[in-house]
Amino acid sequence: MNEKRGLLIGRMQPVHKGHISVIQETLKEVDELVIGIGSAEKSHTLSNPFTGGERILMLTKALREYNIDPSRYYILPLEDIACNSLWVGHVTMLTPPFCRVYSGNSLVQQLFQEANIPYTQPPLFNRTEYSGTEVRRRMLNNDNWEKLVPNSVIKVLKEINGIQRIQKLNQKEISELV
Amino acid sequence: MNEKRGLLIGRMQPVHKGHISVIQETLKEVDELVIGIGSAEKSHTLSNPFTGGERILMLTKALREYNIDPSRYYILPLEDIACNSLWVGHVTMLTPPFCRVYSGNSLVQQLFQEANIPYTQPPLFNRTEYSGTEVRRRMLNNDNWEKLVPNSVIKVLKEINGIQRIQKLNQKEISELV
Amino acid sequence: MNEKRGLLIGRMQPVHKGHISVIQETLKEVDELVIGIGSAEKSHTLSNPFTGGERILMLTKALREYNIDPSRYYILPLEDIACNSLWVGHVTMLTPPFCRVYSGNSLVQQLFQEANIPYTQPPLFNRTEYSGTEVRRRMLNNDNWEKLVPNSVIKVLKEINGIQRIQKLNQKEISELV
Amino acid sequence: MNEKRGLLIGRMQPVHKGHISVIQETLKEVDELVIGIGSAEKSHTLSNPFTGGERILMLTKALREYNIDPSRYYILPLEDIACNSLWVGHVTMLTPPFCRVYSGNSLVQQLFQEANIPYTQPPLFNRTEYSGTEVRRRMLNNDNWEKLVPNSVIKVLKEINGIQRIQKLNQKEISELV
Amino acid sequence: MNEKRGLLIGRMQPVHKGHISVIQETLKEVDELVIGIGSAEKSHTLSNPFTGGERILMLTKALREYNIDPSRYYILPLEDIACNSLWVGHVTMLTPPFCRVYSGNSLVQQLFQEANIPYTQPPLFNRTEYSGTEVRRRMLNNDNWEKLVPNSVIKVLKEINGIQRIQKLNQKEISELV
Amino acid sequence: MNEKRGLLIGRMQPVHKGHISVIQETLKEVDELVIGIGSAEKSHTLSNPFTGGERILMLTKALREYNIDPSRYYILPLEDIACNSLWVGHVTMLTPPFCRVYSGNSLVQQLFQEANIPYTQPPLFNRTEYSGTEVRRRMLNNDNWEKLVPNSVIKVLKEINGIQRIQKLNQKEISELV
Repeated sequence: MNEKRGLLIGRMQPVHKGHISVIQETLKEVDELVIGIGSAEKSHTLSNPFTGGERILMLTKALREYNIDPSRYYILPLEDIACNSLWVGHVTMLTPPFCRVYSGNSLVQQLFQEANIPYTQPPLFNRTEYSGTEVRRRMLNNDNWEKLVPNSVIKVLKEINGIQRIQKLNQKEISELV
Repeated sequence: MNEKRGLLIGRMQPVHKGHISVIQETLKEVDELVIGIGSAEKSHTLSNPFTGGERILMLTKALREYNIDPSRYYILPLEDIACNSLWVGHVTMLTPPFCRVYSGNSLVQQLFQEANIPYTQPPLFNRTEYSGTEVRRRMLNNDNWEKLVPNSVIKVLKEINGIQRIQKLNQKEISELV
Repeated sequence: MNEKRGLLIGRMQPVHKGHISVIQETLKEVDELVIGIGSAEKSHTLSNPFTGGERILMLTKALREYNIDPSRYYILPLEDIACNSLWVGHVTMLTPPFCRVYSGNSLVQQLFQEANIPYTQPPLFNRTEYSGTEVRRRMLNNDNWEKLVPNSVIKVLKEINGIQRIQKLNQKEISELV
Repeated sequence: MNEKRGLLIGRMQPVHKGHISVIQETLKEVDELVIGIGSAEKSHTLSNPFTGGERILMLTKALREYNIDPSRYYILPLEDIACNSLWVGHVTMLTPPFCRVYSGNSLVQQLFQEANIPYTQPPLFNRTEYSGTEVRRRMLNNDNWEKLVPNSVIKVLKEINGIQRIQKLNQKEISELV
Repeated sequence: MNEKRGLLIGRMQPVHKGHISVIQETLKEVDELVIGIGSAEKSHTLSNPFTGGERILMLTKALREYNIDPSRYYILPLEDIACNSLWVGHVTMLTPPFCRVYSGNSLVQQLFQEANIPYTQPPLFNRTEYSGTEVRRRMLNNDNWEKLVPNSVIKVLKEINGIQRIQKLNQKEISELV
Repeated sequence: MNEKRGLLIGRMQPVHKGHISVIQETLKEVDELVIGIGSAEKSHTLSNPFTGGERILMLTKALREYNIDPSRYYILPLEDIACNSLWVGHVTMLTPPFCRVYSGNSLVQQLFQEANIPYTQPPLFNRTEYSGTEVRRRMLNNDNWEKLVPNSVIKVLKEINGIQRIQKLNQKEISELV
C-alpha cells in the first residue's frame, strides 16, 4: 500500500479532549489513521454509558470542530470478542490495512506483537483530568465535566440526554424483581 | 390491541411469596400480564441455582395454588443478551405486545424509557424476607426457608432435589483440575 | 413427578386449525402439555413470517377460543441452535420436565430416542389444507386463508398487519444495494 | 438533532460506479449520509469475496476520487445477525441517529416501516451493468470489469490481489478431505 | 520448533480407507501430523450424521488398526465459524503450531495462502469409492459400505447404531408440526 | 463399548507435575482416558495465559516424556459455554463415549450426577506446589517455577516465549485509550 496507515483504538466513553490531542499527535506520524471505537456493542452501564453509534457521532463532530482533515482518518466500531487470541484477526478483518498500532494497553501490545505488527505507546496529555473515568465521575456528580470535552460533544450529549442516562443508571435498585 | 397488557420481569431464583404478591397487585391494573423469567438460560450457580424450565414449573404451580386465573397471564423464559441497547428489541420479539413494564431495576427502566415504553415501580412486600437472596441463604443453611415460598414450590424443589443441588454447589473446590 | 406431562413442538407459522386438533387429541393422553413454539427467534421471512411473541399470542387466544383448560398447557418459545446433538438438552433446560414427545419430524424423533425419551407420531387432520405452507400460500394470494385458521388468529393477524407483511416480503428486490 | 441524516446500506462486493451515483443523488436530499457496509463479517466466498475492511477502503478511496465532501458521510461496517426482527435495533445501536433509510430491499423496507422509520427507494443507474453480480461475473472471466468500477477501486483490488482471490475461490474442489 | 509438523483437515463423515491412505502418505513428509476433524459440532444430518466425538473415536481406532505410531499424530475437533477470514486464526488457536497444510479445498488453500502458510494438495486414492458421499449413500441403501471403511470403524458404527441413525434421518417428514 | 473409558478435565494453565501424577493414577483404573483441556478458547490473560493448542502441545510432550502409552489417552480441547445445564451435553458431543468422570470441581460433579454419569474425586499430590496458581505466580516473579513442570513443558514454554508473555500481561496499563 502507498499510504502509511496507523490504527488507534479507544473506548471513548465519552470522547474527551485527551483523545483529540492523541489523534493530533499521531497524525503527525502517519498519512492516514484508522480510529477504532472499542467495545462498540456495549452501552447503558456506568463504565460504558454510550452506544457505539453515539460515540461515532461524538468523535466525528469533535474532529470537525478541531478542523482535522476528514480525508485523513477512518472512524470504525470494533465489537469485543470472547477470545483474545482471535482479536487481531477480528480487527484486521473489519479495518483497512494498517502497519502500526497506537495503544497504551499491554494486552493489545502483546497481541499485536505476536502477530508481528509493531506498536507505539501514545503520548499522554494531562492524564489526571483527561480520562474517561474522571469525565464519567464528574457527570454523575454534575461537577464541571464540560471543560474536559469538546463543545461538539457537549452538544451531542444534550441531544441524547446522556447526563440523565448516566445518573439514572447509578440509582440503587430498589426491587430484586429483575 | 384491545386488552391492556403489562410485562413483569423477574429471575425468580426461586419463586417466593413476594413474587405472588406483586403479581396479584399488578393484575389489578392490567387485563393480562406477561411474566418474563429473566436469565432463563442460567442455572447451577449459587445465585442462579435453577433452570428456566424449573422456574416456569414453580411459578405455574404457585399461581394455580393461589387461584390466579390462568387466562390472565403468560409465563415466558427470557434469555440474557450481551448487548444492553438491544435488550428491549429482544424482549419484544419473544413476547405478546405489551404497553407498560413493571420493574424496580433502574437499567430496565432506562432502556424501556428510551424505547418510549412507560414503566411502573412495583410495590414491595416484606422486602427483608421476601427476597431471592434471603431464600437462597436460608436454603444453604437449612434455615426455615419453607415459610418464604408457596407450598407448591416446596413440592417442586423436592422433586428436583433443589436443596441438595444448592448445597453441593456451595462446596469448596478441593482440586484445581477443572 | 406426579402429572404425566408431554411436549409438543411446532413452528406455528401461523397457528391453524390443524394445530388445535392435534392439541385436543394429545390432551386426551397426558395430564399437562408443554407446547413449544419452534424457531421462536425467526421472523420476517416467507416461511417464518411471524415473531415468536406474535405466535404465542395467536396460540393463546386460539386455545381460549376453543375452551381448552388453560391450567393444562404451557406455551413456550424455543429458539433454534446450531448443533443438533445439543438440542434435546437445550429444550430440556427451558421446559418443565416431560416424559414423552409428540412430533412427526424424523430428526426430532431420532434425537429424543438417543436421549431415551419416547416419542409419539401425532395424528393428522385434513393434512392437505391444514398445513402452514398452504396457509401462507393462500395469504400471499388473498385466497380464502381465513377458513383454515381460528377466528382469534384472524383477529391477531389484523392487529399486526400480518397479511400486508407477508405480501411485502414477497416483493422482488428491485435494487441490489442491500 | 439539527442535521437531516439518512442511512444507505449496501454490501458493496465490490464498490462500483452505480454505488457512487446513488450516493451522489442521495446527498442532494440529506445533510449527512451514513453508509452501512452490509454483511461486513463475510468474505472469501464467490458472492462475498472481500472483507469489510477491504470494502471500507474501496469506498473511502472512491468517494475521494469523485470529490465528495468527506464531512458529509460516515462509512460503517454492519455485521449480519440471525434474527430479522432485531436487525433495526442492531443497526441503530452502531450508527449515528438517522431519520430516513435508502434501500431497494423489500425486507429492509418492511423492517424499518414496522419500526416507524420511513424509507425511500433509491434511483437506479444503468442497472444491467452496475450490479455487483455482473462485476463479479466479469472478474471471474477477466472480462472488462475495470470499466464498471472507479479507478481507485481498481488500485485497491490490485493491492489485495482481489482478482486472483475470486478466481481461486471458483476452482473445483478436487478432494473431499475438508 | 524442532519437529516438522503438518495439519490435515477432514470432516470424516465417516472415516474411510481413503483417509487412512492420505494420512499414511502425509506421514512420509512430516515428523508429526495434526489431524483436524472439521465441522466437529455438526451431527444428525444426512451429510454430517456423526458427532465430533464419534468421529474422533473412529479415527483413533482406525489408526491403531493400521499400526500407525500414535506418538506421530494429534486428533483434534475443529468447530466451524461464521467468518471465513477468521478461520485460520481460529484453527491456529486450537492446534499445536504447524508449518504446512494438507487440503484439497480451494477456500482452505486460499485462506492459508493469505496467512503466509504453505499448502499441499494431498494425493487421491481410488476417489470414486473412497469418498464420504459414496460411503453414506451405501449406508442408506445397505449396499456393501463395509468394504470401504476399516474394520474398527465398522465396530464403532455398530456400537453407536450409526446405520440405523442415518436411515432414520432419511425418512420423509410426515407432519409439519415441527 | 468394550473398553472402560474415563474423562478427566483440567485447564492446564500450564501443564505441571501434579497433572502427570493424577493421569498416571487414573490410568490404573481405566483402559482409556479422555483428557479434556478446559477453557480451550481462553488465552492471554493472567489466569489463562496459554492457548488451547499450546496446552495440547505441552501435555502431549509431557506424557511422552513420562513414557505413558499414547494408545491409552485422547487429548481434546473443550471450549466453555455460557449455559451450565448444557455443559454435559456439550462435552459428550465432542468426546468419545466415557462411563466415569474424574474431577474435583463441585459444579462438574453435580452436573454429571444430574446426568446419571458417576464421578470420582481424583487424588491430590503435593497440592501446595503442584497448582496452576502457584506455577503462574512463580513465572511472574522468575521464582524457580521450572521444578514444578516437566522438562518438555519448559521446552515448549521457551519456544512460545511463554514467560515473557505472562510478564507482559502483568504490566500496568498506562493509558486508558483502549
